[in-house]
Amino acid sequence: MTLFDQEELPAAPLGVPVRVRMTVAYDGTGFSGFAPNPGVRTVGGTLRSSLERILRHQVPITCAGRTDAGVHGWGQVVSFDVEEGVDLEGLVRSVNRMCGPAIAVRDAAVVDATFDARRSATARSYRYTILNTRAGNPLLARTAWHVPDPLDLSVLRLGCDALIGTHDFTSFCRKPKVAAGQEAPSMVREVRDARWHDLGDGVLRFDITASSFCQQMVRAIVGTLVDMGLGKRTPGEMRSIIEARSRSAASGVAPAHGLVLWEVTY
Amino acid sequence: MTLFDQEELPAAPLGVPVRVRMTVAYDGTGFSGFAPNPGVRTVGGTLRSSLERILRHQVPITCAGRTDAGVHGWGQVVSFDVEEGVDLEGLVRSVNRMCGPAIAVRDAAVVDATFDARRSATARSYRYTILNTRAGNPLLARTAWHVPDPLDLSVLRLGCDALIGTHDFTSFCRKPKVAAGQEAPSMVREVRDARWHDLGDGVLRFDITASSFCQQMVRAIVGTLVDMGLGKRTPGEMRSIIEARSRSAASGVAPAHGLVLWEVTY
Repeated sequence: MTLFDQEELPAAPLGVPVRVRMTVAYDGTGFSGFAPNPGVRTVGGTLRSSLERILRHQVPITCAGRTDAGVHGWGQVVSFDVEEGVDLEGLVRSVNRMCGPAIAVRDAAVVDATFDARRSATARSYRYTILNTRAGNPLLARTAWHVPDPLDLSVLRLGCDALIGTHDFTSFCRKPKVAAGQEAPSMVREVRDARWHDLGDGVLRFDITASSFCQQMVRAIVGTLVDMGLGKRTPGEMRSIIEARSRSAASGVAPAHGLVLWEVTY
Repeated sequence: MTLFDQEELPAAPLGVPVRVRMTVAYDGTGFSGFAPNPGVRTVGGTLRSSLERILRHQVPITCAGRTDAGVHGWGQVVSFDVEEGVDLEGLVRSVNRMCGPAIAVRDAAVVDATFDARRSATARSYRYTILNTRAGNPLLARTAWHVPDPLDLSVLRLGCDALIGTHDFTSFCRKPKVAAGQEAPSMVREVRDARWHDLGDGVLRFDITASSFCQQMVRAIVGTLVDMGLGKRTPGEMRSIIEARSRSAASGVAPAHGLVLWEVTY
């Protein structure tokens, strides 16, 4: 699906605009992330394109979390404006018909005009799934990272305790592009909760909630914790890794396909 | 992956053959079923082809259940012969490297020469998953049938009670091709267990165990039960549908992608 380059759509809805909030789930496999990017298949681009086909005006969308290529969504939230009187149920049905089954709008509601999916969010939760069995599970191959060597769950748990609180997470963040003369953005984030769950049959789940995350932060944290769980690093190192404020102090990123943007809190 | 048409492989292992039993899991999406079929991408063909590449002789394989196109496997069992002294752990690693992540060998063992994955099996269990929520879930789109209208779980449960026992399941079986002058095979099967589980969040799971199943039997049963759960038929009809011994008495088949060959008992 592509934008209608061939025709000029009005820049905004006619009359009084009404703000809509949508919860969107997606299988990120095969998408180059969420953020619309011309010429590339993205979740946001596909969603925007279908909204524009239906609503017949430009529909810039704001999202709570710009997930990277291959990362999935369950509780992604977007906001955008429509004309007064739009049938939201019909809109959801049409979008789901056009974008499914890889993308599904879970719900939609009219919200206050001050609502902004990104700026109004007070917390984001991500979920990372690991399959820790010798043989892989083809039915989990799209949604779990297969780690064939045994992980020590108690070490994974010890390692993540030091993440809780407000820290400068530079060691876990992809270096942002900063234009000459501009200040580098802050990497200080507040991690409110981080814990591992043993779901049985070798499935381990990591849930982490923070005010917001910088790019690749969850995957770099999981990559570092897994190195600890495999005995390559000790969980006691987590504090010094954070304090180093250097990406090279932490381990590489865990694969994108194990990660889901799980929930956004407002 | 294709068979090595260009070279003649020995028909069987040299010396004393050793029978091997393997448990195989697979994501059936994109495969034309299990049974090897020249020119078509099948699970069994892919597996056999990789075994022949490694073992350098022909490896006819026998499987416990010939799953249809799009059906998944978790506990599929195959048997075949290798030369004495073959390193089974190494064989599993090589097959998994060649066939993964869509196919995974879960385990392998040397068994008695009388073992036959198909004939030695005493029971097969299949699992069917339904997502019964209005919006779909992209992360379950490959493994669950999305039924958007509300299903009455108590009706699903009532409907499947009549399946238990030894019956002629012609009403739920795809008509087999029978050569002129040959007798049609029996469709009498013993269903030992059939039950629905409510996993929460709209996920319903159907587990059914029988001595063996005829083609499309589980999917025709699920299709019929879902019609009952939607109120299109009554659960009391199940007995007369079985007694009709006519495929047209039951409903259409449920989609293949919700079905998994879960376990085989010996």
